[in-house]
Parts: sequence; structure tokens; C-alpha cells
Amino acid sequence: MSLLVVGSVAFDSVETPFGKRERMLGGSASHFSIAASFFTDVRVVGVVGGDFGAEEEQAFARHNIDTSDLERIADGETFRWYGRYEYDLNVAHTLDTQLNVFAGFQPKLSRASKTSRLLFLGNIQPDLQRSVREQMAHAELVALDTMNLWIETTRDSLQKTIEVVDLMIINDAEARQLTSEPNLIKAARKILSWGPHSLIVKRGEYGAAMFTKDQYFAIPAYPLESVFDPTGAGDTFAGGLMGYLASQEELDEPALRRAMIFGSVMASFNVEEFGTERVQRLTHDEINQRFREFKRFTHFEEIPFERAVRAVQ
Amino acid sequence: MSLLVVGSVAFDSVETPFGKRERMLGGSASHFSIAASFFTDVRVVGVVGGDFGAEEEQAFARHNIDTSDLERIADGETFRWYGRYEYDLNVAHTLDTQLNVFAGFQPKLSRASKTSRLLFLGNIQPDLQRSVREQMAHAELVALDTMNLWIETTRDSLQKTIEVVDLMIINDAEARQLTSEPNLIKAARKILSWGPHSLIVKRGEYGAAMFTKDQYFAIPAYPLESVFDPTGAGDTFAGGLMGYLASQEELDEPALRRAMIFGSVMASFNVEEFGTERVQRLTHDEINQRFREFKRFTHFEEIPFERAVRAVQ
Repeated sequence: MSLLVVGSVAFDSVETPFGKRERMLGGSASHFSIAASFFTDVRVVGVVGGDFGAEEEQAFARHNIDTSDLERIADGETFRWYGRYEYDLNVAHTLDTQLNVFAGFQPKLSRASKTSRLLFLGNIQPDLQRSVREQMAHAELVALDTMNLWIETTRDSLQKTIEVVDLMIINDAEARQLTSEPNLIKAARKILSWGPHSLIVKRGEYGAAMFTKDQYFAIPAYPLESVFDPTGAGDTFAGGLMGYLASQEELDEPALRRAMIFGSVMASFNVEEFGTERVQRLTHDEINQRFREFKRFTHFEEIPFERAVRAVQ
Repeated sequence: MSLLVVGSVAFDSVETPFGKRERMLGGSASHFSIAASFFTDVRVVGVVGGDFGAEEEQAFARHNIDTSDLERIADGETFRWYGRYEYDLNVAHTLDTQLNVFAGFQPKLSRASKTSRLLFLGNIQPDLQRSVREQMAHAELVALDTMNLWIETTRDSLQKTIEVVDLMIINDAEARQLTSEPNLIKAARKILSWGPHSLIVKRGEYGAAMFTKDQYFAIPAYPLESVFDPTGAGDTFAGGLMGYLASQEELDEPALRRAMIFGSVMASFNVEEFGTERVQRLTHDEINQRFREFKRFTHFEEIPFERAVRAVQ
């Protein structure tokens, strides 16, 4: 298998000013794997309860997502998140979190999973992330996400995990918080000094930036006139990015740059409808169309200023 | 003359966590014209008091900025602004504003000024902006800046002024406030419906975006590890942008895109030191070097995803 993701599989209930949905397939591993499935074969490591039914299984199956390592605890309940967004949609207000079976999650990797070429450590407790990473000694590229909760409560463990990954994918507030450094460039430099060769910073409606030891790359976001439900945008971005990378032979800087565009494209679709609804019915043509649009709306001709032009005015 | 700017000429006193300067040459027209002077001939319409001395005159003269239309009121004082920035540098705290001679400013355009090819209406009262615009019937391109004060206090006049310009250059908070529209794309559409063929939205550390009737263009900001004094960044951006445009024969979309890059380059230098210090001693090589860097850190190869690649994995 090409790409392995470990993370949460959940039922999300979301209220926005535009509507409301109950018990949608959600969680970092779900958003990630569905997005990635458009580019590569994906295997999910996670845990669900007895309430995880045929409909959810089919959503994964339709996208050829391998769920053999998705542990089923028949007498438990799946992780549930209840959230609300205000009109500006930038901040999620958590109304309730029920960890359920996720509280005792111990990721178990089958022999097949351990041969995956790429690994994405979704936003879970950093000790667990590291335990998975250690079982994947031969992975070509290991990427990591995290959140403010782990920065605040398990900083030492998180830093140890960062030390053993290749790529970190977090948002700008987290990068600043993690390093106590308000300037993003300085924050990035500090994170890279801990071990990862690349850092990708998500900036929501402002796009994303990538820092490597000697290069910088930045893109705006795809311009959206209406954002419906931002839940899972970050995981969808990571899924598009890692899925695209898994489809490429060379995991070099040019591939990482294109991967960021595909990640942004997938995230732009994700937020246009509730949950994974829009991404689930995407086509490759739609994805490539937005990829090409990215090129059009970021392109400019490289013609430096010539003083001679001025002289003839 | 190629480019005319009307706006404030001021003495700024600025405190930041990194230091303090008193009585620096400032104001929208100063920042704008010094930045623009690297690309074209500039003429300034403004007003100063008897305290505007040889040093300030020389700063303009060194950059071949024509100050014939800079009115001198010998028994008055020049506009003064006292500001402070906190550690994050995003918000300017105005400690004191003394309008002085600027309070009674009535822009007077000489015959020569009226022949300028391009006009920039810096951030002054919108009635005054419109009175200048009306004297420039043959200008090829008229651009406008404004601020929250005018949006709040003179909205009707501001809208009338927007109706008679070609290009509006404002920041994202102002675009949202002006249109009561939290979504920037919708806000942009509304502003374009009032008359301008183009809208350029400044997003500070996140870059800038341009909206035209049928195109979108967006760029990240130049990555800076240390920002020293953000005063005048917006006017310096506009100065680089309009100055570059004035140097071009065709004022088409590709020229506007490159102009945005040159504007961003000039703004990136501006914030690295106090006031206009850094921009005043710039060279064309330094400007072109950052222009080329922009190309490098925004470039990606346009290779759409091919399913065939997946099949061979």
C-alpha cells in the first residue's frame, strides 16, 4: 500500500449559519483518506464503535480505502464531535466531545500496513504518533499534524515526535504557539532545526507556505465565494497533499510544491458542502481544473524592471 | 510627467519595540512618491508648513520628485503623526495626530500636473480626491486609496469617488467594512460593480489579491524575518505598483500583475527600517533581485494529476 494514515474516525454534528447536519462521517483519518484516495491507495488505522455501520463502511469502500486496520469495538461508541460555526466561519466552537472508544485508542499496524511508502500521523496524542512512526522504519516520508491541545499538555512528547518525522503540516497559529515566536519565518526555522526537512504551514483563507532548509514556497488559497462548513479542511488539505505525493516517484521539492496545490484544491472543495459530501463525489477532471486555475491566478511574467524603459518615457 | 500623487506629507514620530524615531519624513504622498520614483517621474500635490526644511526638500530632490505643486504655508506647521506599535506590529496605535496645515488642504494642480498619465489619489477626504480626479479628465489610469475614517464618516462621498476611478487599492478589512460583506470575493464583486475595472486588496503579511471583471490574481507577501516599522507599507506598495505601471506602455492585466509584485517588493523593503530610510537608498538591482525571488518562491510546474501514474504504482 502507498499511504497509511493514523487518526480519528468520528461522527460529526455541525451547525453553521447555513444549516445543520447530524452524525456525519468525520474525524481526521476520514477526511484525510477520502481526499487522498483520489491519488493513491490508502490504508486507515483507527478505531470505531458498534454504531459504525454499513453506510460508513461503504463510503470508505467506494474510495478503495483499506479499513483492515480500522479496529471495531462492538460494544463501544464511535468518537463524536458536536461543533458550531458563527457567521465568519473562522472559529469552530466545540459544543461537546465524546471520545468514547477513541479514549483508549492504541494503534495496531498489520504487517501490510507497515510496508506503506508514506505515513501521515493525524492529530492524535504524540506518544501514539511516535509509537506508529517507530513501526514504520522504512517509510520514505513521514508527516505529522498536531493541535493546540498537545502543544499545551504534552509539549515534550510532541517535540520528540517532531524530531523523528520528515514533514510537519500545521496551521500558522500552532507554529507560533509551538515555538513562542510571533514571526512565522523564525518559527519555521526553529521547527526545522528540530528535525523535519520540510514544514508546511496552513493559513486558511490566506493559503499555505512551505519552508525547507534552503527554499521557501507560498501560495494563496483558492478563492471561494461561499464557505459552507470548514470542518476537516486541514485534514483534506493534508490528504490531497500526501495522496498526490504517494502517486509520485520523486518526493522532491517540485513534487512537494505541486502536492500543496492539490492539497489546496481538495480543501477548497471540502468546505463547499457539509462534511465529506463534496469531496466524496469529486472527479479527477474537477480536481485538475482547479489545479490549472491555480496556475492561472498565480502566474506573472518574469520581466525585471529595466531603467531603459524609463529613459524613453 | 508620468505619475501624479495627491496625499499627505507629514512628520512621523514612531515607537516600536525595536526603537524610536522622531520627526521622520512621512505621510502617504512621501512614501508613495519615493517608492514610485525608482520606476518613473513623479509629481506630488500636497501641503507642508514652514518647518518643512532643506533636508526634506533634498529627499524629494534626490529622487527627482517634482514638488512644484507641494504648497508651502510659511506660517503653518506640517501634519504630524505620533504612533506606537506593539510587539506583533500589526496594529498601529495613534498617540497623537496634529493636522496643522493639512486641515485646510485644497489640492491645486498646475497645468503640467494635469497632463500626468497616471494619478494616485492617496488617502485623503473623498471630496478632495474627487475634485482632483475631475481635473484629470485625460489620465489613462486613476487609482484610489482610502481608510476606515472615510468609510465611517463620508461613505456617500467615498462611493461617488470610487465610481470615477479605474483602480481601487485598499486593505482587506476596509474592503469588508466598505461593503458590509465578510466574504472578500463577494466584497470585491460589489466594489467592481460600482465602477472600477480593478480592485487590489492588500493583506499585509499574507500578500495581496487583484480582482477584475473576469480575472483573479493573488500573491503571498515577501517573507521577512524581521519587520521593523510597518508605517507607510501600504503607500509604498501603491507607489511601487503605480510607478511600475507608469513605466509600461500597456496598462493591461499582465502589467498589473507585475506591478503588484514590484509594489510588494518595495513594501518589503519599507518595513525593514524606520520610515523611508531603507527605500531611500535602494538600488534597481536590489529591487529586481526580490522581484526574481518572488518568481522563485511562487513557481510550480503545471502538471495535472494523471491517473495513469497511479496505475503503475
